[in-house]
Amino acid sequence: MAFQPYQASMLALGQAPSVIRETFEYGNRRAAEIGRENVFDFSLGNPSVPAPESVHDTMRTLMDETDSVLLHGYTSAVGAEPVRQAVADDINRRFGTGVSAQDLYMTCGAAASLTVTLNAVVCPGDTVMTFAPFFPEYRVFVESAGGKLTVIPADLTHFQMNLKAFAELVTPEAKAIIVNTPNNPTGVVFTEANLKEFCKLLHEKEQEYGHPIYLIADEPYRELVYDDNTVVPYLPNLYDNTFVCYSFSKSLSLPGDRIGYILVSPKMQDSRLVYAAVCGAGRALGYVCAPSLAQRVIAANLGKTSDLSIYRRNRDLLYKNLTDYGYRCIYPDGAFYLWVEALEPDANAFCKKARDFELLLVPSDSFGCKGFVRIAYCVTTEMIERSLPAFKKLAEAYGR
Amino acid sequence: MAFQPYQASMLALGQAPSVIRETFEYGNRRAAEIGRENVFDFSLGNPSVPAPESVHDTMRTLMDETDSVLLHGYTSAVGAEPVRQAVADDINRRFGTGVSAQDLYMTCGAAASLTVTLNAVVCPGDTVMTFAPFFPEYRVFVESAGGKLTVIPADLTHFQMNLKAFAELVTPEAKAIIVNTPNNPTGVVFTEANLKEFCKLLHEKEQEYGHPIYLIADEPYRELVYDDNTVVPYLPNLYDNTFVCYSFSKSLSLPGDRIGYILVSPKMQDSRLVYAAVCGAGRALGYVCAPSLAQRVIAANLGKTSDLSIYRRNRDLLYKNLTDYGYRCIYPDGAFYLWVEALEPDANAFCKKARDFELLLVPSDSFGCKGFVRIAYCVTTEMIERSLPAFKKLAEAYGR
Repeated sequence: MAFQPYQASMLALGQAPSVIRETFEYGNRRAAEIGRENVFDFSLGNPSVPAPESVHDTMRTLMDETDSVLLHGYTSAVGAEPVRQAVADDINRRFGTGVSAQDLYMTCGAAASLTVTLNAVVCPGDTVMTFAPFFPEYRVFVESAGGKLTVIPADLTHFQMNLKAFAELVTPEAKAIIVNTPNNPTGVVFTEANLKEFCKLLHEKEQEYGHPIYLIADEPYRELVYDDNTVVPYLPNLYDNTFVCYSFSKSLSLPGDRIGYILVSPKMQDSRLVYAAVCGAGRALGYVCAPSLAQRVIAANLGKTSDLSIYRRNRDLLYKNLTDYGYRCIYPDGAFYLWVEALEPDANAFCKKARDFELLLVPSDSFGCKGFVRIAYCVTTEMIERSLPAFKKLAEAYGR
Repeated sequence: MAFQPYQASMLALGQAPSVIRETFEYGNRRAAEIGRENVFDFSLGNPSVPAPESVHDTMRTLMDETDSVLLHGYTSAVGAEPVRQAVADDINRRFGTGVSAQDLYMTCGAAASLTVTLNAVVCPGDTVMTFAPFFPEYRVFVESAGGKLTVIPADLTHFQMNLKAFAELVTPEAKAIIVNTPNNPTGVVFTEANLKEFCKLLHEKEQEYGHPIYLIADEPYRELVYDDNTVVPYLPNLYDNTFVCYSFSKSLSLPGDRIGYILVSPKMQDSRLVYAAVCGAGRALGYVCAPSLAQRVIAANLGKTSDLSIYRRNRDLLYKNLTDYGYRCIYPDGAFYLWVEALEPDANAFCKKARDFELLLVPSDSFGCKGFVRIAYCVTTEMIERSLPAFKKLAEAYGR
């Protein structure tokens, strides 16, 4: 074989165009031309609300009162014991579970939670499933762990999990399925009924195939839910073979601090062995420990969130007005995304047209689903207000 | 193939016994029995000197003056541009290089620097070489990236790079070689002559094989050098196809903050493509970006270090006294390790014997070299002073 100066797959990943990044960069260029206030950039899923004040209070206290060598030292590879204990207590209090510190592995955020989990369990020949539309990095993470991603087509009516399609596509090679609720990119929260039926089906398939199928609950948006009566069931209570991949990026507005965790449900089959494999995968990928200061910060701020009412206001404003203008919007109960049907079949062409009105939207194709756009409303309410006439004109341009 | 509930290699890694961790835990149990002050634990390579005051000053200023959403937000995957520019400027100032921000990729510390680099370049069938004794995680990182580690036997006299053995063992399959100076576990700084001859040899092999052999300079200990006339040459100035894998863990005593970088030398063949592969590998392993606060902290503290004079004092104290007691110590110019010949052929038996005197040392076997022990002197000077009679009695027990 000819010498390859680099891993071809890594080069391809490094050079892969990202429609989200391209849109964001277009927005920056356009802002330079016509002024930032005239560009309506809804492309990025970055929290726009500051971290709660208590985060900085905690950091200041830690700096004042904790020995520097300890504060900035390595923690155990799995995370500091008191931090894991605090997280376990918080989970048990909220969800009535029986989780202990030894079931938790602290990570550098949601992406690390997913890559470490996938590398721990995926073996050659395994498939990992997910429901469309889905966060496109899932494909990168699954394939890098040596698995094959099976995408289950979307339920285009309600954007709940498409259980019929799941039942048709699942095979004995299925090692795991990634479930993301509240969902990126749709903002939909899967109903309790949908989740319960899914878990029942999944368990039947486990019994049929004679082996576990892991449910990987990707939950960075768990706390971002806006309707008081919306329930986001805790999946380890519905299904034994569950990993929870969590991140504090959205709930505490700390995406840059890279802090999250993996919960290996204590009810999982062989859970201690699977946990050991998680530790091995973390080591193999070069994760020595999660950032030590951030570990202590989240432990002191469990149960707190950024001011999420701003996202709720943004959601209400966009959903109501866009629906009034004639857009078909999928009702978003959570996360900070609005999923809107494009006004022509080709979402890319629709997003190009939207740029004529300085609206920067992300077409749905990269999420594994055609004909929709994602509107990330983690922006200022004031920008949304200013953008409404542009959305109206865009609808009018399509005769609405 | 039978169903595997987890990746067997990851389980093995997660369950692998670590002699360093086992020694550390023995020390904790022993401390509970006889008092912390009576146990002399030299097992761990954790910085024992606090971060410079300016680190906390920077953090406080950032919290006071930077918008929270920006401070705790994602940076670009490769790192914030002003941070990379500051690091590039610092490298150019110190080493006369022509590095630019686009050659740097910020990472979550040295381990991440190595795993990302290895995953970027290692292809099936490739070997990666390193000189014994070596940091044992190299094997984990190389094998996880799909490569085979070739260990070059130690130069047992001076513990410089064994170039004769290298020349005998290198093959056309060699994709890269990891060089670590100042060295863990020996504390030795490779001489300029040794490095220059090595680079010459390596370049000859590149020409003979008709392809690059990457030099991966693992440099977390670069600033930890104690003799004023010791030079640690900058490898990109000696060899074009060089990666520098750096970490601020030791220089600023911030191991828990997980912050470092990869420099892809701009002189490297296809350096822009290799850099893109680095970006792809970071993405595949789940590194979204290096911690954003830590990025800004190190950018504001370039050129600063913790008070390294404490390590120097520790080194002098140990080296002088142990030599006086009849130990053969390899002179350590850097890092915070002393490499000492065991007083019997089996280093494990010697370390067991040392425990009779409450001395906790790490046998050399796990570093790929028999008959020595590593003494990590990143401890208090006062503990070293208290430990000296124990070292003396241990020597006497062997008739020295």
